Amino acid sequence: MPMYKSDQLAHQLKSLIEKNIWKAHTKLPSLREQVESSGFSLMTVMNAYQKLEAQGLIYSKEKSGYFVAEQTKPALDSASTLAPKIEINSSVFKYLKSIQTPNLVSLGSAFPDSELLLPIKLRQIVSQLARYPKSYDQTTNLPPGNLALRKIIAQRYCMQGIPTQADDIVITSGGLDALNLSLQALTQPGDYIVLQQTTFYGAWQAAERLGLKVITVPEHAHCGIDVDAFEQLILHYPVKVCWMMFNAHNPLGFTVSEEIKFKIAKLLHQHHIHLIEDDVYEELFDGLNKPLPMKYYDQNNLVMHCSSFSKTLGAGFRVGWVYAGKYSEHIQHLQLMSTISANTLVQNALVEFLSSHHYEKHLRSLRLKLKKNKKRFYHYLKQNLPTQCRIHYELGGYFLCIMLPEQASSEEIYKTLLNQNIAVAPSILFNYSQQHQQFIRINCSFDWSNHIQSALDVLTITLKQLSNAKLET
Amino acid sequence: MPMYKSDQLAHQLKSLIEKNIWKAHTKLPSLREQVESSGFSLMTVMNAYQKLEAQGLIYSKEKSGYFVAEQTKPALDSASTLAPKIEINSSVFKYLKSIQTPNLVSLGSAFPDSELLLPIKLRQIVSQLARYPKSYDQTTNLPPGNLALRKIIAQRYCMQGIPTQADDIVITSGGLDALNLSLQALTQPGDYIVLQQTTFYGAWQAAERLGLKVITVPEHAHCGIDVDAFEQLILHYPVKVCWMMFNAHNPLGFTVSEEIKFKIAKLLHQHHIHLIEDDVYEELFDGLNKPLPMKYYDQNNLVMHCSSFSKTLGAGFRVGWVYAGKYSEHIQHLQLMSTISANTLVQNALVEFLSSHHYEKHLRSLRLKLKKNKKRFYHYLKQNLPTQCRIHYELGGYFLCIMLPEQASSEEIYKTLLNQNIAVAPSILFNYSQQHQQFIRINCSFDWSNHIQSALDVLTITLKQLSNAKLET
Repeated sequence: MPMYKSDQLAHQLKSLIEKNIWKAHTKLPSLREQVESSGFSLMTVMNAYQKLEAQGLIYSKEKSGYFVAEQTKPALDSASTLAPKIEINSSVFKYLKSIQTPNLVSLGSAFPDSELLLPIKLRQIVSQLARYPKSYDQTTNLPPGNLALRKIIAQRYCMQGIPTQADDIVITSGGLDALNLSLQALTQPGDYIVLQQTTFYGAWQAAERLGLKVITVPEHAHCGIDVDAFEQLILHYPVKVCWMMFNAHNPLGFTVSEEIKFKIAKLLHQHHIHLIEDDVYEELFDGLNKPLPMKYYDQNNLVMHCSSFSKTLGAGFRVGWVYAGKYSEHIQHLQLMSTISANTLVQNALVEFLSSHHYEKHLRSLRLKLKKNKKRFYHYLKQNLPTQCRIHYELGGYFLCIMLPEQASSEEIYKTLLNQNIAVAPSILFNYSQQHQQFIRINCSFDWSNHIQSALDVLTITLKQLSNAKLET
Repeated sequence: MPMYKSDQLAHQLKSLIEKNIWKAHTKLPSLREQVESSGFSLMTVMNAYQKLEAQGLIYSKEKSGYFVAEQTKPALDSASTLAPKIEINSSVFKYLKSIQTPNLVSLGSAFPDSELLLPIKLRQIVSQLARYPKSYDQTTNLPPGNLALRKIIAQRYCMQGIPTQADDIVITSGGLDALNLSLQALTQPGDYIVLQQTTFYGAWQAAERLGLKVITVPEHAHCGIDVDAFEQLILHYPVKVCWMMFNAHNPLGFTVSEEIKFKIAKLLHQHHIHLIEDDVYEELFDGLNKPLPMKYYDQNNLVMHCSSFSKTLGAGFRVGWVYAGKYSEHIQHLQLMSTISANTLVQNALVEFLSSHHYEKHLRSLRLKLKKNKKRFYHYLKQNLPTQCRIHYELGGYFLCIMLPEQASSEEIYKTLLNQNIAVAPSILFNYSQQHQQFIRINCSFDWSNHIQSALDVLTITLKQLSNAKLET
């Protein structure tokens, strides 16, 4: 592969830094000086400087130019990497369109089986309210959203020991809207953000759209998140915002322990880094107590906690929220320029439903059903999967990830299964880099049936055929 | 005021161009050459070149540099101007928040009186459908949106003589979402777009957010849009997209004639410029026939026609659409990254309501009521306004604009009235430049009542006091 001129120049400069000829915090020659001394074009010099900056070897100060970065910082774990320019949208789009085919066994969906959602009491309330014009009145539901609904949400935070006022909450058009608005409010194009190596594709897409630089933090087999790697990368890069999931992680399913959450919160606090906490599965835990969100450990209004009713009541409602705190006005600003408000009738219906004991009752029953269904899926898959495939059981949520044998392609398996009318989510959607282990995510929220069993049979046979083929080659 | 170095340089170069020393299409010195010859810094040279480009004196070609623009082009009408960096959001935000106060006489709202919307038949349908889980099923309502709803919308275009397939339509989360998605799909930061001089603030906000350069086309007393000025500016600037309103313009109320629409469509076609047509008041015409949209004259898939049900059925529904044609997939892309889908229950209810004769019946009655109410407002205001205030009556829509005496401030009047619990929309929201005539927009959709009459009395008294004060000074 031919070397670009900018790589050539970056290489020269890098060796000056590494050999300590250029000491830490020394000012680099200005772009113009470098153009003159090197004979390269301005574009080449700019590209070279930007590459060095991306590698953490130099840093820039506004109006002052570039400076050599501190080399005593810990070497970056190779697993934490600055992702190249992100272009994930096309493949996600193709995937999302493909799983809209009717009569598909929808094991690729991120939503629980709709048969488990939409409790009859909620539908009755919507039906009742729908008769009156007042229920559709937008005025009382404009940003920051329905006051009664915000009070109820605030109350639920308080019950977890997180002091919250109704004015801290902004109602959004679903959870993704909450996450996107938060990222837009907290960043400028070119900023560095941290995503988990394996993460919900919506985060990648948002970063792409806003022109952000993404650094990924690797998973840790026991802790969920590799805290050491996390610390290294925030020492290394001028990170502005992290967008991460700590409870019932999508797609991997893990819930981070209190201890690790505390450590990460401390690091965020020390370095004044904001966290956009995607916690849309917070209510679907497996056990007696709802896991604490990172918001609980937030000392300095650094955490924007985002959640929604899409995974507990119904995906089609499009009502979510963000604990925006002092950023409330900024978020409302962005809303009034885009979606204006979430559906008014639904906001009103949610107020009535959530004010009763019906929500807690529904959640308890939903959690039990999801736990039962996921266990059933797990045991069936464990019995039937080829030995080269691994499968973890994590508490909470309703996903299982099947880890594929080395060199298997999740995309190939997804396509093969799609031809047989079964949708699964391939790891390519969650993992921008192709170097990491491939897997497929299975939605296990469905009640057991012959239909489901047949689909899992096709799945396991496909994986066996693949494993045999790989063994033969 | 001290002159910036970049202005100084721009001034020098401008005179070289104007004196024809630098001929049209001559390449300018490269940035580096200019730095060396002028002694100015790179930043200064870049700023100077960008200023000249913004003035239309030079143009840039990718990878080739800057060139002198053709000077034989018609001189730009001073009324068509490149707007400075737009920062309208804060004032709009303050305005929108201020009019949310309860018990306000809401003459500043852009929505018709909700008492006139939300027909009982539609509410019955929502109420009926709300009982069944199937009505909330998101799968059949994901982008591009509910197929049956898209078919009905396509059919309505066909009835106007615009050949349309269901696949040309994308359902959005309201009309503003349709407009924003279209602008995002068709532009890159730095592109030139055309807005009407007086225009819905949402267009200014979208331009600000996407980092676009705005050129405005002035109004014309008789035609609504000044076609000659429009032609001049598209000859002068590399315009990518126009975002404009042709029917029942917000806030001015005019509907552009067929002849002018045809002329503008021809110009767009000749210069291959896209039009985002904001047509949310299309159904609220005054007369027998619905005015044709610009989409009717579109020969080359250049027009993205955007509309919604917010002004005819209910603001809180948040269901709109765009005639996206070949851009459908691009729009869906952007949706799946942001709002995902419009509310599912509402989409299903609209299908049932629009399939019946109820919608046409509702629209006929709505048009008559709006016409009657607007006339009543007009006659009352005409009788009572001070002579220094002018008021036009335009067919269609439900807005009246009161033109203020010279040197009056629409913002001052808006604030004075707000203190008396009356909201009106000041021209500052629609007119970025303060040089143009000031006005206030009145929403005349309300049925006449003592309450309304008293509010209009306060309004006219306030305007009289202002006029007298101005005469005295």
